[in-house]
Amino acid sequence: MRCIGILGGMGPAATIDFMTKLMALTPSSRDQDHLPVVLVSLPQIPDRSAAILGFGEDPLPMLEQGVKLLNRADVGLIVIPCATSHHWYQELSAISHAPIMHIANAALDRVPRTGRTLILATRGTLASGFFQRTLTDHEIDFEIPDPNSDQSAIDECIRSIKAGRYESAGRALDPVLKQAVAHGVTSVIMGCTEIPLAAAHVTTKGLTLIDCSLELARHTVDHALQRGWNRL
Amino acid sequence: MRCIGILGGMGPAATIDFMTKLMALTPSSRDQDHLPVVLVSLPQIPDRSAAILGFGEDPLPMLEQGVKLLNRADVGLIVIPCATSHHWYQELSAISHAPIMHIANAALDRVPRTGRTLILATRGTLASGFFQRTLTDHEIDFEIPDPNSDQSAIDECIRSIKAGRYESAGRALDPVLKQAVAHGVTSVIMGCTEIPLAAAHVTTKGLTLIDCSLELARHTVDHALQRGWNRL
Repeated sequence: MRCIGILGGMGPAATIDFMTKLMALTPSSRDQDHLPVVLVSLPQIPDRSAAILGFGEDPLPMLEQGVKLLNRADVGLIVIPCATSHHWYQELSAISHAPIMHIANAALDRVPRTGRTLILATRGTLASGFFQRTLTDHEIDFEIPDPNSDQSAIDECIRSIKAGRYESAGRALDPVLKQAVAHGVTSVIMGCTEIPLAAAHVTTKGLTLIDCSLELARHTVDHALQRGWNRL
Repeated sequence: MRCIGILGGMGPAATIDFMTKLMALTPSSRDQDHLPVVLVSLPQIPDRSAAILGFGEDPLPMLEQGVKLLNRADVGLIVIPCATSHHWYQELSAISHAPIMHIANAALDRVPRTGRTLILATRGTLASGFFQRTLTDHEIDFEIPDPNSDQSAIDECIRSIKAGRYESAGRALDPVLKQAVAHGVTSVIMGCTEIPLAAAHVTTKGLTLIDCSLELARHTVDHALQRGWNRL
């Protein structure tokens, strides 16, 4: 029996949200219909965004430790419900026995090919540039928040979710979304797995919100069901 | 670094509820404050209650497989957010490298020493008798539902949660609780980790509801924080 491997804890709320989505997306009427999962949740992994920006401890050794634990469990696929960690996608893939599904590729299907798309993510993810490269490779135009204004609100939104302040996270996100609508943006990639937890508390209408965590869960369930991982 | 080991998937919603409780009970303002966890979620484990009652496949081999995976991850403690599985507590403890925290012991602290206590659980758990033995050992009086009437509503409640029908689960539970109040019951041990998910949808007042999943989470967090498992 093969399991889905999840490298999580970055943060724990985003991991639980991802697992809830996995469960909800699996057609089921009893326990045995669901997909087997091994989760390694290591919240002590140093701040990914700070490290990419050059002022934090390197998270790679502990990310690798997580992948090695999943190797020992012989998982058939690894997913990481933390977008920023995908900065180390190549290094982690090199030591993983199972393929790692890339969160930016999972989100790509849902990005409209017309209109204006805004990428919301950590400063580290935006500096790493993997969302931008994925969209550019598919000739999709995008924009990113002004690092001196809107990005500070996004930072606050993400920090609030990690501290368990959901409504406050929504309040931080709302003005950015409203301004985006005013500037003609039509879709937003929530490119950090904390942001969808804030989105439930925003009031802005008129945007297609693309939830990278939901899309990762959708592709994960498809991958596992196609291979019959819930059948013994 | 030691991790909390969770043997879950029985069912997945109860496991996610348990993890949400672990997270909420951990004092934190950022990812790194949280506790490291390895979860082995194996929803394919055969129905525990049916096996205890003598008409289902033996779940022990797959429960043991889960413990062995947690052994390989070198966890410092194992918890099982499925009460019925504790029927095999001795067998699983015998092969586990880490102590297994017993869900009935975790719930015991919260059971009032006066008044009348009702145990709600699967038929398998009640046939196994570990909740009754724990209470008897501490000279606490208890009662269990009539197997020919109330227990059928409890079975329906648990089945509904496993099928994702939360309100329907609450509707099945409510008449049993109302009748318990009418008969002088003052506290209820929700001795199955699905039942607390239904309890959010009941209207009955006047009972102390003891959530075995919450109590297991509370003891788990205490155990791990005392040993500094969230400090590197």
